[in-house]
Amino acid sequence: MILDDAYFMRIALQEAQKAYEQGEIPVGAVLVHEQKIIAKAHNQTERFLDVTAHAEILCVTAATQALGGKYLPDCTLYVTLEPCVMCAGALAWAQLGRLVFAASDEKRGYSRHQPSILHPKTQVKAGVLEAEAAALLKSFFKKLRN
Amino acid sequence: MILDDAYFMRIALQEAQKAYEQGEIPVGAVLVHEQKIIAKAHNQTERFLDVTAHAEILCVTAATQALGGKYLPDCTLYVTLEPCVMCAGALAWAQLGRLVFAASDEKRGYSRHQPSILHPKTQVKAGVLEAEAAALLKSFFKKLRN
Repeated sequence: MILDDAYFMRIALQEAQKAYEQGEIPVGAVLVHEQKIIAKAHNQTERFLDVTAHAEILCVTAATQALGGKYLPDCTLYVTLEPCVMCAGALAWAQLGRLVFAASDEKRGYSRHQPSILHPKTQVKAGVLEAEAAALLKSFFKKLRN
Repeated sequence: MILDDAYFMRIALQEAQKAYEQGEIPVGAVLVHEQKIIAKAHNQTERFLDVTAHAEILCVTAATQALGGKYLPDCTLYVTLEPCVMCAGALAWAQLGRLVFAASDEKRGYSRHQPSILHPKTQVKAGVLEAEAAALLKSFFKKLRN
């Protein structure tokens, strides 16, 4: 089996699905180091009543247990929605090596902001399994309005 | 005793001093709701090996226990250094009512970024006990270089 970007993003989507089933905004993330998943998480802001409990923040916090350090230059983070500025700021402090996200976030995404919020060395790839991630979010907010 | 901005900032400075003594970058924060301190914290990124363990994030996370909710529209956060984008993003999600900070951060401060990262309703006051906060930071980095 080839462990490509779509493979890891599919696992991030499974995390997002868990959030969906728990009534959380469906965003999931997977942190990968040398082809190995060292953390995965989904949004838990409602469960913890904590605005900082985004999938990305939970992954960054959990990474230390696996790596023994707080920097992630050799890691890739897969996340189903473009990170917000809070999360992008956390990824910048962590010196994340590579960021791959699925759906863009026109309203809250970090990329609306100047100067760039990510660490200058972080590589970015957008749009991996974008349709699936966007459909899950759309379904969630549609259900919420009904 | 008058519980003014300088009063609460002095307590934030005491938190920063604790960080200093623990070898952490000396930043402290105090979260106040109706003249009452509901959370205080200092930077603990080294202790937890976690880039997200900034004083502001720790206060936002702790606030839920006191308030039973995750929004802070009636709260003031006092912090000894201008928040970074990660923390400002967290304060935006929390819909913080008022932010008071001491020293500005020319390199990492949220206010360098456009469009504004804070919630549009958050009031901001800068420069309260700025000299004391800046001196503590300067002393820390000087010690680090020796």
